[in-house]
Amino acid sequence: MAAAAVTSGIITLTTDFGHDAPFVGTMKGVILRYFREACIVDLLHETAVYTPAEAGFWLQRSYHYFPAGTVHVAVVDPGVGTDRAILLAEYDGHIFLAPDNGLLADLLTGTGPKKVYMLDVDKLVNLNLPAPSATFHGRDIFAPLAAHVAAAALSVEAIGKPVDAWVTSSLPVVEVGKQSISGVVVSIDRYGNLISNIDASALNHFARPQVGAAGSVFSLQRTYGDASSGDCIALVNSFGVLEIAQANGNAAAALQMRRGDKIVIQEDI
Amino acid sequence: MAAAAVTSGIITLTTDFGHDAPFVGTMKGVILRYFREACIVDLLHETAVYTPAEAGFWLQRSYHYFPAGTVHVAVVDPGVGTDRAILLAEYDGHIFLAPDNGLLADLLTGTGPKKVYMLDVDKLVNLNLPAPSATFHGRDIFAPLAAHVAAAALSVEAIGKPVDAWVTSSLPVVEVGKQSISGVVVSIDRYGNLISNIDASALNHFARPQVGAAGSVFSLQRTYGDASSGDCIALVNSFGVLEIAQANGNAAAALQMRRGDKIVIQEDI
Amino acid sequence: MAAAAVTSGIITLTTDFGHDAPFVGTMKGVILRYFREACIVDLLHETAVYTPAEAGFWLQRSYHYFPAGTVHVAVVDPGVGTDRAILLAEYDGHIFLAPDNGLLADLLTGTGPKKVYMLDVDKLVNLNLPAPSATFHGRDIFAPLAAHVAAAALSVEAIGKPVDAWVTSSLPVVEVGKQSISGVVVSIDRYGNLISNIDASALNHFARPQVGAAGSVFSLQRTYGDASSGDCIALVNSFGVLEIAQANGNAAAALQMRRGDKIVIQEDI
Repeated sequence: MAAAAVTSGIITLTTDFGHDAPFVGTMKGVILRYFREACIVDLLHETAVYTPAEAGFWLQRSYHYFPAGTVHVAVVDPGVGTDRAILLAEYDGHIFLAPDNGLLADLLTGTGPKKVYMLDVDKLVNLNLPAPSATFHGRDIFAPLAAHVAAAALSVEAIGKPVDAWVTSSLPVVEVGKQSISGVVVSIDRYGNLISNIDASALNHFARPQVGAAGSVFSLQRTYGDASSGDCIALVNSFGVLEIAQANGNAAAALQMRRGDKIVIQEDI
Repeated sequence: MAAAAVTSGIITLTTDFGHDAPFVGTMKGVILRYFREACIVDLLHETAVYTPAEAGFWLQRSYHYFPAGTVHVAVVDPGVGTDRAILLAEYDGHIFLAPDNGLLADLLTGTGPKKVYMLDVDKLVNLNLPAPSATFHGRDIFAPLAAHVAAAALSVEAIGKPVDAWVTSSLPVVEVGKQSISGVVVSIDRYGNLISNIDASALNHFARPQVGAAGSVFSLQRTYGDASSGDCIALVNSFGVLEIAQANGNAAAALQMRRGDKIVIQEDI
Repeated sequence: MAAAAVTSGIITLTTDFGHDAPFVGTMKGVILRYFREACIVDLLHETAVYTPAEAGFWLQRSYHYFPAGTVHVAVVDPGVGTDRAILLAEYDGHIFLAPDNGLLADLLTGTGPKKVYMLDVDKLVNLNLPAPSATFHGRDIFAPLAAHVAAAALSVEAIGKPVDAWVTSSLPVVEVGKQSISGVVVSIDRYGNLISNIDASALNHFARPQVGAAGSVFSLQRTYGDASSGDCIALVNSFGVLEIAQANGNAAAALQMRRGDKIVIQEDI
C-alpha cells in the first residue's frame, strides 16, 4: 500500500474511556503532537467497559461511513500492559488499530480485501516515543502510531509482522437452526433500543418472520413511528441489524432486558 | 442567496442521540465524505429524548454565538421514516435543517429575515445518495445535505420548495396575565439549574418582580455567588431566560422539580 | 513572549459544564468567531461540579501531552460574576486561562518557567466584546480571550497585570510523615478507579511500600491485568499518581469509597 495515496487524514476513536477523566483528551493531544493536521472524530467512548466485542460490533457497522483511507483506533483494552499483542489491519480501504483481544475479529471475518499485522515492538523504537505507561497504551502507543499512519509518514507493513490468526470475538455466534435464528443483545442505545448481533439478512430465511425475546413476540415494523406510542416492536435498524424498540419509550426498561439477552427469529405459523 | 458568499464552513449538530451508540460519529463521517474541510461542532446531544421543543429552545438561544453562514443541523426526530417533512430555513444569516416537528417553530417566530423551505424529496436524487434507512435520517439525509450546503455546493432554494407554514412548537406558550407571567421548566443543566422559557424581558412588566415555583418564592439575584451556599434563587441566566438555581447545589433535586413544571413571576406587594 | 512564535493554534477546554446544555458548544462558537482556524480539543467537562481542584489536578497532569504553545482554558467557576479575578499564566511553554479560585494553584507550584498575570478588566474593552453575562464568563470572556491569544493576536502581557500570588488549592496537601505518606481520592474515572493526589515518587520513600484505604491493604501491581479479576490493587497510573483499582471491576463501588477519602502508604513490615 502506498500509504500516502490512500490516507484521508481522518482518525476515529472508539474506546470505553468515557469522559470522567482526560483519557480521550490526552490521546488527542498526542495525535496532534505528531500530526497537527489530523481530523479526529469520536466514534464512541461509552461502550460497556471491558467489553471489546461491543466496540468491535459498532466499529464493524460504522467504519464505512467514513472516507476511505481513514485510520480507526479502537482501544477497549483490559489486558493493557500485559503481553497481549496489538493488531494493525488494512481492510476494505480503511486502516484499523486495536489490541488483539477479539475487538477486530468480527470485522476481519468480512470478505473485503485485508492485510493483518501484529505490531513489531522492536520497530516501535524507530518512532522515538517516550517510554509507554503500563496502563494507557491508547495515549502512549496507539495515538502516536495512528498519527504517523494517518499522516502517511508510516505504513502499517513497516511497523508490523503479517499474521493470519488473531484472538476471536467473545460475542456469541448467531445460531442458525432449521426453525429459528437466535442472537443476543449487543448494545443498548440512549433510547433504550435493544440492538442485536443478528444481521437483517437472517429475516430472509423466513416467509413470515416473527421476533421474540423476554417471553414476548414483537411485530416487525419499518420504523418507530409506524407503531403506537408505547408499543414494543422489532425492526431492522439503520446499522442493518435486528433491534427491539419501544415507540416513544425505552424497550430496555419496559422489557427489563440487557446486554447478552437472547433474541430469536422464527416462522410465524 | 449566493450560498458561497455566506457559508462559514461550520456545521453544528443538535440531537437527542447521546453517546451510547455511534449515531453522532457516523453523521460526522458522512459529512466529511461530502465536505472534507467541514468544521463540525457538537452543540447538544443530550436533550430529553423525543422532545423537539427542548432542542429547538437551545438552538434558538445558541445559534447566534456562531459565525454567520453556519449550518445548524438539529435532529430530534421521533417521526423519522414517516411522511413528516424536512425543513431548510435561512434565518438571521444562519442556515437551519430540521424535521418539521416543531423543533424550529420558536426560532422562526423571530423577527429576523427568513426564508423557509420544505425538502423536495424528488430533487434529493440529484445528490446521488445511497438509499436512506427508515430510522436514521440524521446520518442518511441531514448529514449529506448539511455537507453540501456548508460547502456552498448546494443552495437551500435548489433543493426545497418555499413554505409559509410548519408544525408548531409543543412547548406551552408563556402566559402573560394582568397580575402574573408564567412559563415552564424547559431544560435542566448539569448543575440542576431549572431553565425556563420565560424571556428576561418579562421582568420589565413588574416594578418589584417576584419569582415563584413549587410553592416557594425566590429572591432575584444577579449571579450564583451573590447568594449564600445552599440558597435557592431566581436569576436571568446567560441565555437570557429566567432560571431557578441553588448556590453550590442542585435546584432540581432540592425543589424536586422537573421539565414542564410551572414558574410564575408576579408583583411583590 | 513573542506570542506568534509559540502558539500551536490549539485550545483545550476543561470545565464542569457537562453536556446537558450548550455551554461547551457556544464557547466553541465564540472561539471560532474570533479565530476560525482554531483547533479546539475537549480535555474534560465532567469533573465534579463546583470543584476547581479536580479540574486543576487533571490539567496539571495532562497539559504536557499537547504541543507547546497550546492555550488551555479551564472554567470551573462557582464565583462567576463576583469580583473573583481571572488568571492568565505562561508555564512550561503552555498558556493557561482560569478563574483565580485555586484551579491553577497546584500547576503553578511546579518548577517550570512561569509568568502569571491577572486579567486587567480595563484593557478588555480593547477587544470590543459584547457585554458579558453575569453567569457565563467561559463563553463571554474566556472564549474570546483564548481565541485572541491562540491566534497570536494578543499576548498575555498586553491584557494582564503581573501577579505573584493567587488563591491556593482547596485540595489537601499530601502529608509526608516519618512512617507514612497520605493523600486523598481526587477523582474517580469511568472504571471506578480511585485516583489519588499522591505522586508516584512518594513510593520511593519506602523499601516495601504498602497501600491502604478503607480499612484494607492493597498489593502494588504494575497493571490491571497482573491481578486476578475482582481483586482490588494499588498501582501507579498513567498520569503518575497512586491509584486503587479493581481488576475488571469498579473499585469505587466495591470499596464504597469516594472523592476526599484517605489513601495511605506505609512500610510493609
